[in-house]
Amino acid sequence: MKKTLFALAALSLPVAAFADGHAETSTDPHMSVEAMADATLTQDTIAWDFVEGITTEVGPRQAGTEAETRAREWAVAWLIENGFENVADEPFEMETWVPGNLATARVTAPFAQDMVIQPLGNSAPTPVGGLEAEVVFFRTVAELAAAPEGSLDGKIAYISHEMRRAQDGSHYGFAGPARWVASGIAASKGAAATVIKSVGTDYHRNPHTGGTSWPEGVSPTPAGALSIPDAENLERMFARADGRPITMRIEMNPEFIGTTISGNVVGEIVGRNPDLPPVLIACHIDSWWNAPGAFDDGAGCGIVAAAALHVSHTGQPLRTIRVLFAGAEEVGLWGSRAYSEAHIDEHIGVGLESDFGADRIWRFESNFRESNPDLHARLAASVARFGVAGSTITASGGADINISRDQGGAIIDLQQDGTRYFDLHHTPDDTLDKIDPVQLRQNVAVWTQIVGILANEPRSIQTGGPIPSAPAIMEE
Amino acid sequence: MKKTLFALAALSLPVAAFADGHAETSTDPHMSVEAMADATLTQDTIAWDFVEGITTEVGPRQAGTEAETRAREWAVAWLIENGFENVADEPFEMETWVPGNLATARVTAPFAQDMVIQPLGNSAPTPVGGLEAEVVFFRTVAELAAAPEGSLDGKIAYISHEMRRAQDGSHYGFAGPARWVASGIAASKGAAATVIKSVGTDYHRNPHTGGTSWPEGVSPTPAGALSIPDAENLERMFARADGRPITMRIEMNPEFIGTTISGNVVGEIVGRNPDLPPVLIACHIDSWWNAPGAFDDGAGCGIVAAAALHVSHTGQPLRTIRVLFAGAEEVGLWGSRAYSEAHIDEHIGVGLESDFGADRIWRFESNFRESNPDLHARLAASVARFGVAGSTITASGGADINISRDQGGAIIDLQQDGTRYFDLHHTPDDTLDKIDPVQLRQNVAVWTQIVGILANEPRSIQTGGPIPSAPAIMEE
Repeated sequence: MKKTLFALAALSLPVAAFADGHAETSTDPHMSVEAMADATLTQDTIAWDFVEGITTEVGPRQAGTEAETRAREWAVAWLIENGFENVADEPFEMETWVPGNLATARVTAPFAQDMVIQPLGNSAPTPVGGLEAEVVFFRTVAELAAAPEGSLDGKIAYISHEMRRAQDGSHYGFAGPARWVASGIAASKGAAATVIKSVGTDYHRNPHTGGTSWPEGVSPTPAGALSIPDAENLERMFARADGRPITMRIEMNPEFIGTTISGNVVGEIVGRNPDLPPVLIACHIDSWWNAPGAFDDGAGCGIVAAAALHVSHTGQPLRTIRVLFAGAEEVGLWGSRAYSEAHIDEHIGVGLESDFGADRIWRFESNFRESNPDLHARLAASVARFGVAGSTITASGGADINISRDQGGAIIDLQQDGTRYFDLHHTPDDTLDKIDPVQLRQNVAVWTQIVGILANEPRSIQTGGPIPSAPAIMEE
Repeated sequence: MKKTLFALAALSLPVAAFADGHAETSTDPHMSVEAMADATLTQDTIAWDFVEGITTEVGPRQAGTEAETRAREWAVAWLIENGFENVADEPFEMETWVPGNLATARVTAPFAQDMVIQPLGNSAPTPVGGLEAEVVFFRTVAELAAAPEGSLDGKIAYISHEMRRAQDGSHYGFAGPARWVASGIAASKGAAATVIKSVGTDYHRNPHTGGTSWPEGVSPTPAGALSIPDAENLERMFARADGRPITMRIEMNPEFIGTTISGNVVGEIVGRNPDLPPVLIACHIDSWWNAPGAFDDGAGCGIVAAAALHVSHTGQPLRTIRVLFAGAEEVGLWGSRAYSEAHIDEHIGVGLESDFGADRIWRFESNFRESNPDLHARLAASVARFGVAGSTITASGGADINISRDQGGAIIDLQQDGTRYFDLHHTPDDTLDKIDPVQLRQNVAVWTQIVGILANEPRSIQTGGPIPSAPAIMEE
């Protein structure tokens, strides 16, 4: 575990391990985790196999629908075929919204033309035949919030609220409220519908969907996202209308269909010491109905599964590595919450998630830098050779590891470069071709290295001390 | 006309000429064409005003429809407002195809998922409720052509036939037949429908439409284009299906609606000598229904109109400059043919067209390099300072100047960089944001320079000799 030499050139993996993406034949207990991580950097095919498979053989997989069920069945079969143990689909109930099959928008005056719109998650339907009203332009959510009560009666609120690219994705926090809360604010002021500029950073005619929400006591209205070129065109219309009202007709037929079944898919690389809390590595299996879910989050599931297998190929790890493909993440973390509820009494050693695309990991963060500085430093140092920097930021974990937050447990964030993530996020353009195989393999290498260390760590990951519930682990 | 010094930094245009895109106030007869061309490189706003205006205030404008009529009305008003004379909308009849409002595709087995499709121009509709059949995969048009007669009975032919980017757009000649003729070939072999990989070079879920054709005696079938990510996904399905048949359901409702009226919009900068054959500078006003037509060809119309105005601002030119915004180009050059038919007896001095986007002009070509080498050399030399190279290629002109070809007249091609043209061509992504204002202005500068020379050329452009029909022009 202290080896730091970078010896990639001298390494190669057994061919059988990578020719068909299966794991059974490739165990090499003489190979170190470091050597394995180095080899995956150029040779991994497992992550690609997963993301190619799920996007080709399943495609979009909206939470709570039959498409998500097929995705879970596909993932269960894939995990079993690749040698995972204790593979299961743990069901849970959810309240399910579906987008319908109709989403049209047209500016009717003064500059008649169609626009590309998609409903936001939790949108109400329009009346059959559509809804036509004057559009009121707000540059920001704050401007909308400042509009007088009742000032939007019967109108369509349009919120611009521009997003910018950021490597760490932090602009999502700035721009996200346009999607998360604007429709609720507009509805509370009497708006008949809300239309937003997509929360995204690309210039293609594919709107970014995603969930919106409704405050207590506010009835849902139709709420949709325009593609960014359409939104900018609408804004130019305001500039050219010379004060004439701009009217728009929209028609959408999303609906809530009541309670359906989703599920969390799990699988394990069983460790030598079952008393030690497992390493939980997570992603989500669902995608929005409009998105094939390559970046979000087929790649994440491929990365964590590949890392687990590569670690197992260096010999049985000390701790169990559990992969969690959470269901119904996009529509409100239903799977992550259900998993935490079901397993809250089972102590998780550490939780990690991959859910931010497939571009290069550039920063390592943990939430135990102060409580277990030796392990934090050892982990950070172990991935420096892959161009991953350390950080003093405290990891908070992603959407799919609620259980680690709920337990107050150890968390690691392996931050991916998100510069182009919001070009693709929740759009039809989230397709396999967007994944750069070189960067995908860098993810696998970093994850293999980190998971390999964690899964062979005998002491408490959070504190470095002996784990009270497992006193018999002093074998190192 | 012999000035070759590059004095851009010292030049500026009267502010009034560019603040609102109007021309009336800006005439400066003391300014040379060279100085004006230099100034437009950094200061032109006219071309942008046109393309922003037509994409914002009209948007998509399918030939023969009310949208194209609105586009012509808009263009007539714009030309008049900007000071053109003899502005007219010259009507012609055409047989009109419309795309309908329904275009869906879904792979039904073995890997059920929706795909994004759009009909090709001249496609027949599917039966109401759609058409489901096995898909037969052809890598190229040649493979399709080699399929035995009747071998496609009742099936859907899919043609891949990959396109690559090329600066000169020459790969369109290689890839285009997949759209132009494959559906006709497939139909002649019994296919129920044809689906092609979009003839394009981008990776977005917006199919490239465009016209297809049917051989004599072959009944039209449904014919559509998948977006390139969808097409590649379909091809991966073939690789993963282990021989199982791949079935697809498509539904589209395009139709021929009979004879409608389109038109050619013309306007002039009237020259000092009306006996001299005019300089004809052309573009087309229509776009496919799915495309706002910024690159194709709003920009082209903006460029030629801006150049005409800038030349006029240096003083009344010797020859008349006529702009032609041809109608119904996309669906078969109806406007270009109608214009030639109506004006065939009116000798055109030289024809030029801008219809390849808005990226930088990089090459100058004429068809009179041998017949009038002095003028060819002078023109080529005049735009070298804008990074435009000469060429020994013989210009053949674009779609909108049939009249010059029909007359056997002088033609110039100002070749634009087409590297990203087929990312956008005939797709919803052909929006204003794709236009780089810096490159657009380089186009205007080059056109201003070239048109300025041509419009002040007293001798025959084609031969350099006196023009027989206008003997009184020896005023230079």
